[in-house]
Amino acid sequence: MDISQQERTYETPMADKSTPSSLARYLDGEFWETKDHIREEISQGEPFRTSSYGLTLDQNRDLTVERLEYILTRPLMRHHLKDQMKEKQPGFIAKSLGITELICSADMSTGVKLGVVCGLFGGAVTNLGSPGQKKKWYLPVTDSEFTGMFAMTERGHGSNVRGILTEACYEPSTQEFIIHTPCEDAQKMYIGNSMKGNYASVFAQLIINGDSQGPHCFIVPIRDRHGVMNPGVTAIDMKHKEGLHGVDNGILIFDNVRIPRTNLLSKFGCVSADGLYSSPVQNKSKRFNAMLAALTPTRLGLTVQAIAAMKLGLIIAVRYSHSRRQFGPKDQQEVKIIEHQTQYLRLMPHLAAALALTFTTRFAACMMDHALCKGEVLQNNSSLQALVAGLKAYSTWENLACLQECRECTGGMGFMMENRIPALKCDSDVFVTFEGDNVVMLQVVVKELMTQFTRQLGNSVVGGLIKTWTSSVSDRLRTSFLGFNVDTVGDLSFLLKAVSYRERVLQRSLATRLYNKVEKKREEFFDAWNSCLHHVTGLALAHIHRVTLEQFALAVQECPVEEDHTLLTKFCLLHGTSLVYQERAWYLEHHYLTPTTSRQIRTQLLELCRSVKDEALKVVSDFNVPSCCIQAPIAGVANPRAEWAFYSAPEHPITASKL
Amino acid sequence: MDISQQERTYETPMADKSTPSSLARYLDGEFWETKDHIREEISQGEPFRTSSYGLTLDQNRDLTVERLEYILTRPLMRHHLKDQMKEKQPGFIAKSLGITELICSADMSTGVKLGVVCGLFGGAVTNLGSPGQKKKWYLPVTDSEFTGMFAMTERGHGSNVRGILTEACYEPSTQEFIIHTPCEDAQKMYIGNSMKGNYASVFAQLIINGDSQGPHCFIVPIRDRHGVMNPGVTAIDMKHKEGLHGVDNGILIFDNVRIPRTNLLSKFGCVSADGLYSSPVQNKSKRFNAMLAALTPTRLGLTVQAIAAMKLGLIIAVRYSHSRRQFGPKDQQEVKIIEHQTQYLRLMPHLAAALALTFTTRFAACMMDHALCKGEVLQNNSSLQALVAGLKAYSTWENLACLQECRECTGGMGFMMENRIPALKCDSDVFVTFEGDNVVMLQVVVKELMTQFTRQLGNSVVGGLIKTWTSSVSDRLRTSFLGFNVDTVGDLSFLLKAVSYRERVLQRSLATRLYNKVEKKREEFFDAWNSCLHHVTGLALAHIHRVTLEQFALAVQECPVEEDHTLLTKFCLLHGTSLVYQERAWYLEHHYLTPTTSRQIRTQLLELCRSVKDEALKVVSDFNVPSCCIQAPIAGVANPRAEWAFYSAPEHPITASKL
Repeated sequence: MDISQQERTYETPMADKSTPSSLARYLDGEFWETKDHIREEISQGEPFRTSSYGLTLDQNRDLTVERLEYILTRPLMRHHLKDQMKEKQPGFIAKSLGITELICSADMSTGVKLGVVCGLFGGAVTNLGSPGQKKKWYLPVTDSEFTGMFAMTERGHGSNVRGILTEACYEPSTQEFIIHTPCEDAQKMYIGNSMKGNYASVFAQLIINGDSQGPHCFIVPIRDRHGVMNPGVTAIDMKHKEGLHGVDNGILIFDNVRIPRTNLLSKFGCVSADGLYSSPVQNKSKRFNAMLAALTPTRLGLTVQAIAAMKLGLIIAVRYSHSRRQFGPKDQQEVKIIEHQTQYLRLMPHLAAALALTFTTRFAACMMDHALCKGEVLQNNSSLQALVAGLKAYSTWENLACLQECRECTGGMGFMMENRIPALKCDSDVFVTFEGDNVVMLQVVVKELMTQFTRQLGNSVVGGLIKTWTSSVSDRLRTSFLGFNVDTVGDLSFLLKAVSYRERVLQRSLATRLYNKVEKKREEFFDAWNSCLHHVTGLALAHIHRVTLEQFALAVQECPVEEDHTLLTKFCLLHGTSLVYQERAWYLEHHYLTPTTSRQIRTQLLELCRSVKDEALKVVSDFNVPSCCIQAPIAGVANPRAEWAFYSAPEHPITASKL
Repeated sequence: MDISQQERTYETPMADKSTPSSLARYLDGEFWETKDHIREEISQGEPFRTSSYGLTLDQNRDLTVERLEYILTRPLMRHHLKDQMKEKQPGFIAKSLGITELICSADMSTGVKLGVVCGLFGGAVTNLGSPGQKKKWYLPVTDSEFTGMFAMTERGHGSNVRGILTEACYEPSTQEFIIHTPCEDAQKMYIGNSMKGNYASVFAQLIINGDSQGPHCFIVPIRDRHGVMNPGVTAIDMKHKEGLHGVDNGILIFDNVRIPRTNLLSKFGCVSADGLYSSPVQNKSKRFNAMLAALTPTRLGLTVQAIAAMKLGLIIAVRYSHSRRQFGPKDQQEVKIIEHQTQYLRLMPHLAAALALTFTTRFAACMMDHALCKGEVLQNNSSLQALVAGLKAYSTWENLACLQECRECTGGMGFMMENRIPALKCDSDVFVTFEGDNVVMLQVVVKELMTQFTRQLGNSVVGGLIKTWTSSVSDRLRTSFLGFNVDTVGDLSFLLKAVSYRERVLQRSLATRLYNKVEKKREEFFDAWNSCLHHVTGLALAHIHRVTLEQFALAVQECPVEEDHTLLTKFCLLHGTSLVYQERAWYLEHHYLTPTTSRQIRTQLLELCRSVKDEALKVVSDFNVPSCCIQAPIAGVANPRAEWAFYSAPEHPITASKL
């Protein structure tokens, strides 16, 4: 690093040391102590007293390695990672997500690399490996002896991961697997940590005597600790990306690379010395599904990464909007830009969504921890899979929309790198693509919703199922419908019913359409599904919207401090109003809203946004993000690299947020 | 530059040399020969046979200087710039925009710097200066002897430019102006070319004997040709931005800088030796407006910059979508990703919008050329001002939405820098902010629409005017309303009526609301306006939507080749359908659409997108953008810096686009 320490250090205001408010504690949740500890470690950590913009690719990657090492060597972190080796650790997922969010707040590249090394590589070894394999390949990671990578995606198969082509042929004479890339399309692509890591968990078709047993996961040495490549392995640097400059993505090509038989992670399938395959799961498709379960926690991890980015963007944009003045009544002082109707209308719904996502993610983590402690195969839990896939898509899109508004609402200042928003946008842009493209995720949601329904009915014939489903949900639909009352659009109960109604009607009509196409008209399923794709994605989003509003409402209900309860109630109403407003055309089409109530919803949205604009300062403060993570001069954090850009922090327009 | 020539050269496929199709020629318009000439110059130009990602800030700026010099020294370009010195050159604006679009396709930073040097600095000198001043300060620019910058925006006044604080005090004893930055808020900020340029056109309050005559424009020497700073001038480098890395933005601070009396650009105001002020425009506000007219052409320039970015994104995303395969019917080859309903639904409306913007910008340029040839003050032409401001906001937002879809629709490949889309996004992100923040632009649109109306009625009393207006437009409204017919939502005439109806209703209701607030309730105008801001922005967008659809429809009508006419008709219908679909909630609220017709609009949108997805390949090809501008390996342009990323160009799914 050729950047002098003097130049790269942020000033850390004393304000950081104050005791968090009751709301901050409530937003932190159960593991607030762990999170406080991580906040302290990040604030104290030398590698985080800097910003990474304007560095060369190599400098950026080196800084990320430095940061990752710092994180991995913290005693709390080492302890936590060793818990990952054990099974059924209560709250492990929730705690991991809390830690992930804060590390991503400090630096997205470091967070993503942590996800690759511990979440994906670590997840593969600990979920798919035997106790001995965990000890051999993950214990050293927790001791910072080496790092790993996760090689699933191929050039030819990004989203459609079942079709991967990399081969692992068993050779009984040497008791080895021969890992091979048979064609260009089989190259492992976008592999994170591939230019630095030592071992890869490689997904390949397991072939014994020419027969494929489907994809399995193998540990393949890539390079030793001195960087010397394993013979037969080629790693091509993919170099420059839009963001995540600290993450070294590359292509892995295997030319008949030999690994011992024992390098097959053996939980869901193993091969005896003489080449006999055995597995606890007979069905190939189910087996692969079980293996994919290892991905579920990291998919939820992506949601907290998106939340981290959103919160930072909102902190910066809300603070600046309360500090910058422009335009105003004739011959008077210009007003704060937050006072412009368009400004609060652009920012406040995202703040409400950030809160909704915080509570919904906590709920999902809790479900997942619960399932894991019961020893469930996550992949078989349809509600959880639908929730995680839906959250991934919704949160990552919502984050991009939020950051774009934050960028635009901070004007030219928001285009400057020292103000953080541009890098957050560029880093998190790929979240909508990786760990499952969002459009694919939305299809997963709908497939899971359907599976869930099949199971409830104990019926496996798709056609019949859809038919029954269609009629069986109509009563509940009617209830929602009749629950509508002109006077109550401002009630949370109205909003909850509305989002629930929409999900169910979309579900019913999709089932009917698919049934007609597949069963009656005998269309190929792919074509029938594809012709309904707009409907499918609409349903998936309706599902996740409904869940976020419900979870937000529950969190409000459980909030113990009256003042916080009152504040959160307003944001919860805003979130619900914003969801219904976005889809008001659909509600009008279905006579759920009348033209008059639809306009009421718009008025209500404007009014709620106006009413929370000042309290927004308290909320972003209660996100409790350390100054060294916020970095932005326009948010009142001085940066010696851009002294000219400093804005003093806003004064709160109200001393107490009583209603 | 430390990048070897070998490494930075693109391969230029022979395909470039083929004769453009009739559609390509039609899309190019009147100045197709000039555009072909520029295409040739760019394709031959050494500085453009490279891509600029991954360079350091200095390398990037140096490359941009190299590119700008190359462009400015082309004979065609020198000839064109000398035309800028003359007044009333027919077609000058249209030609300039054609050139700008192509240079921006090649490199956005070069296009923006060209805009600063010739459009803004050049525009200030040629529009506000005397013949002698033009010869002194712009002729040398056309001969590449020095470059200039445009210093209007200040730290304290970005959008609200009337409030600038920089001072220019006249000192009769020395016959000098003293240019001074009295406080931090008066610093000139974001000034492009400020680290490289020699002269600045500085907007400052002209003060004589302590009285301000309002903002005027002064030529201030910044640094000589060897880079030595003029005493009293400080330039602070603003360094790293989200994009436009080749543009050197900085802060200018003046510490009592003395310039001769003759450095005041004198067309709208001059000071005699003994300090007497005279101006052909007595009203200060009108005078400043007249000066701002110099900005109008560059504002329209921004629209073609956005169009250039959109077209590139669409070329890359459409080609890749026709080449990449993923998912498909069971046991069959995977399908091209363009076949997925969501994929064509995400891309096709933007392609239609790009065409609409192309024709609308041509219309605006024609209006502007016409007005200039008649010697009109552009600032007094309300329709033109509304159109240019609205186009600026709509095109730059539409571009960002389009590029984001292109990024996501090209998956992980769209996140890689060599595939161009990330840089296009980052470069053009600030377009929504600079040359007038989009939210401010939308307010300009509505204010101009109102002024236009006032003028038509020959009535200057705002209240009375609005009242009259309200009743006078109601007839036309009714006609639109009655024109509605259930069977015709697929007709262009229905769509044209719909967008026109929406604009007029929004206009009428806004007028009524403002009238009630200002005239009846005696609210402060700023507060009344601010409480209607969501309405105002909605009206402004409705206005520009209507104009784009009308201009698209006219261009279709005038298209001479039947095959092209048929193709454009479908895209025009798609654009109209997409505009109405986006606002279907509003149409439902106003009973302009019934629930049934609203659903028909959705079906029609899906069907139109599906029906043009294959012809999209022809359209993007007919954008006629040289390969060295496209650059992206996934669009079939090999890049030696990322050989692994190459995808062969798609084969056309249909040999002829006959319907």
